[in-house]
Amino acid sequence: MDVPGRLARLRAGLQKAGCGALLVTHLVNIRYLTGFTGSAAKLFVTPDDAVLVTDGRYREQAALEMDCSGGARLVVAGDADQWTLLGELARKAGKVGLEADHVSWGRQMRLAGEWAPECELVAARGLVEELRLVKDDGEIARVQAAAGVADRALQGLLSLLGERPTEAEFALALDSEMRRLGATKPAFDTIVACGPGGAEPHHQPGARRIEVGDVVVVDFGAEVAGYRSDMTRTLVAGSGAACGGAPSVAWLGEAMAVVTASQESGLAAVRPGVCAAEVDAACRAVLERAGMGELLVHGTGHGVGLDIHEAPWLSAPSTDILQAGQVITVEPGVYLPGVGGARTEDTVVVTEDGCRALTLAPK
Amino acid sequence: MDVPGRLARLRAGLQKAGCGALLVTHLVNIRYLTGFTGSAAKLFVTPDDAVLVTDGRYREQAALEMDCSGGARLVVAGDADQWTLLGELARKAGKVGLEADHVSWGRQMRLAGEWAPECELVAARGLVEELRLVKDDGEIARVQAAAGVADRALQGLLSLLGERPTEAEFALALDSEMRRLGATKPAFDTIVACGPGGAEPHHQPGARRIEVGDVVVVDFGAEVAGYRSDMTRTLVAGSGAACGGAPSVAWLGEAMAVVTASQESGLAAVRPGVCAAEVDAACRAVLERAGMGELLVHGTGHGVGLDIHEAPWLSAPSTDILQAGQVITVEPGVYLPGVGGARTEDTVVVTEDGCRALTLAPK
Repeated sequence: MDVPGRLARLRAGLQKAGCGALLVTHLVNIRYLTGFTGSAAKLFVTPDDAVLVTDGRYREQAALEMDCSGGARLVVAGDADQWTLLGELARKAGKVGLEADHVSWGRQMRLAGEWAPECELVAARGLVEELRLVKDDGEIARVQAAAGVADRALQGLLSLLGERPTEAEFALALDSEMRRLGATKPAFDTIVACGPGGAEPHHQPGARRIEVGDVVVVDFGAEVAGYRSDMTRTLVAGSGAACGGAPSVAWLGEAMAVVTASQESGLAAVRPGVCAAEVDAACRAVLERAGMGELLVHGTGHGVGLDIHEAPWLSAPSTDILQAGQVITVEPGVYLPGVGGARTEDTVVVTEDGCRALTLAPK
Repeated sequence: MDVPGRLARLRAGLQKAGCGALLVTHLVNIRYLTGFTGSAAKLFVTPDDAVLVTDGRYREQAALEMDCSGGARLVVAGDADQWTLLGELARKAGKVGLEADHVSWGRQMRLAGEWAPECELVAARGLVEELRLVKDDGEIARVQAAAGVADRALQGLLSLLGERPTEAEFALALDSEMRRLGATKPAFDTIVACGPGGAEPHHQPGARRIEVGDVVVVDFGAEVAGYRSDMTRTLVAGSGAACGGAPSVAWLGEAMAVVTASQESGLAAVRPGVCAAEVDAACRAVLERAGMGELLVHGTGHGVGLDIHEAPWLSAPSTDILQAGQVITVEPGVYLPGVGGARTEDTVVVTEDGCRALTLAPK
């Protein structure tokens, strides 16, 4: 983790934004800049200082996790003392950026009152997120590790699909297997949807049993060292053994084929310099040709990293331009209320001339 | 779920705050007011209207989950159309409250610009949280169900403690067992800490094996129907069979006894009308008499419900007054870096004359 490099790039951004300092309150950004993974902290970054403040619950963990190679220092204190210290630093810095998309309006108002008149607050947007857009090799390796765990977990559980598990049982089996294989936790709430449930893109796994011939949408990922993977497979439950065979609802078989072609079209459009909206359009075009364009009710992808959903955004209104080293999903789906749905999703890294899949489970 | 009653009480609060409407953006509050559990929605409440807006991914789920008995209505639309609709409603309402402790400063600035001059934004604080402070019977029953799941999961896994599992293996076993017993998920990241790891209140379960005589801090809970439980037990790993016996570090045995007495003292202080700070003081007094006052590095409790941490707050600076029907934890602990720690925690409901434990696993 190149903490000194990250801090240096953040400081360049700070200068461009005209801020004397940035108060980082978004925990994922604090993790990115320091390595600290606890649930309560603030980070104050100036051109020549970086102070991580946390409370006594995290004294040992912060000392252990924090990467101080960039000169960052740790202060452990109670809540009131933390804000007193941050106030002193802020007044010294003069113009202080707050992460406007993360800090609450209430907090901003309190600080504006308490830190005035010596300190002026500036709405800083995406200064750390911009650094996180392109992943370094270590970050890509972590997403790859997460993807590998998810791949192996699914592979090991395909035969369970034929044993009539409920959606909830299959989701639990996946989650447990991912952790057994080294995941800290699932990357997000695992989705297992069979039959009509497949028509809900974010279906919550329930008590419905997966029967032979059922089309099952499985959308899940692992988290390894803070980095996440995201993959969807649409499977047909077989009898007794592995999955496969014809779905009991013919339309869903057609939907699966169309979605697969749509994703291939999207993946083929991925390369540096392309607008994310073009990838989205490439996915949509295939669905529209099949008369299923109206059945896609979400964007067709997003960045993945420390957050499960982060920039760039693959959707029609997106103006994001893809860059090599970005990690994104491509995930078209179609949904027919009362009948079911199909979605195919992979996590890929944008390469110099296209993309490389990190999730590798067979489709 | 008395949705009409909740909306009526919210409207009374709105009127007192001088707002013509409240834009609810905090998802847990939206769940409380409508029953909708999806991950993306806004709720606009006026004296005679309540509109839940969400996107196409949640069309079916919202229709299924939403309790419309109070006259609330559902609008499914894309993001841009959602904000257009909300803007129209806001301009009509004139003075609109935002949940200042949840809405981002960035969002507030955008809305202030877009909705001006017809609409004035007001910082509303805790309007819904205030309603959530005292739980109704249905809510208490859900926390009780969550607590019961956690109790049974731990009871069923006590013998595993003697089989030298790693912290991570024991945490995974607990999480899986809770889900098997009906939990939607763990209430928060399960903490299993043995040996020196116990000195970190929020220790992340790792690869260290739990050996005979190890003192193990297990802090975990279940989520059932959105409501959470929270319990900590400090156990001594036995050999082969159930836990018990003397800890291999004598000081930790003493710490366990002191923490147990401290919690009993805190629980005895719980009743309606008492300040939460007094319960905290009752816990601390026992630790101080034992010379361990300095080893407590956190507050001694918090409210539990739809959030794992919510008001009231049991800490020295707290001014919260306990009320019958509140659900809180009482959880003193002591932590000695390099050696280990001990903590005992129960989730209890405040009754007319004291409190009743919802978590019932033996100590």
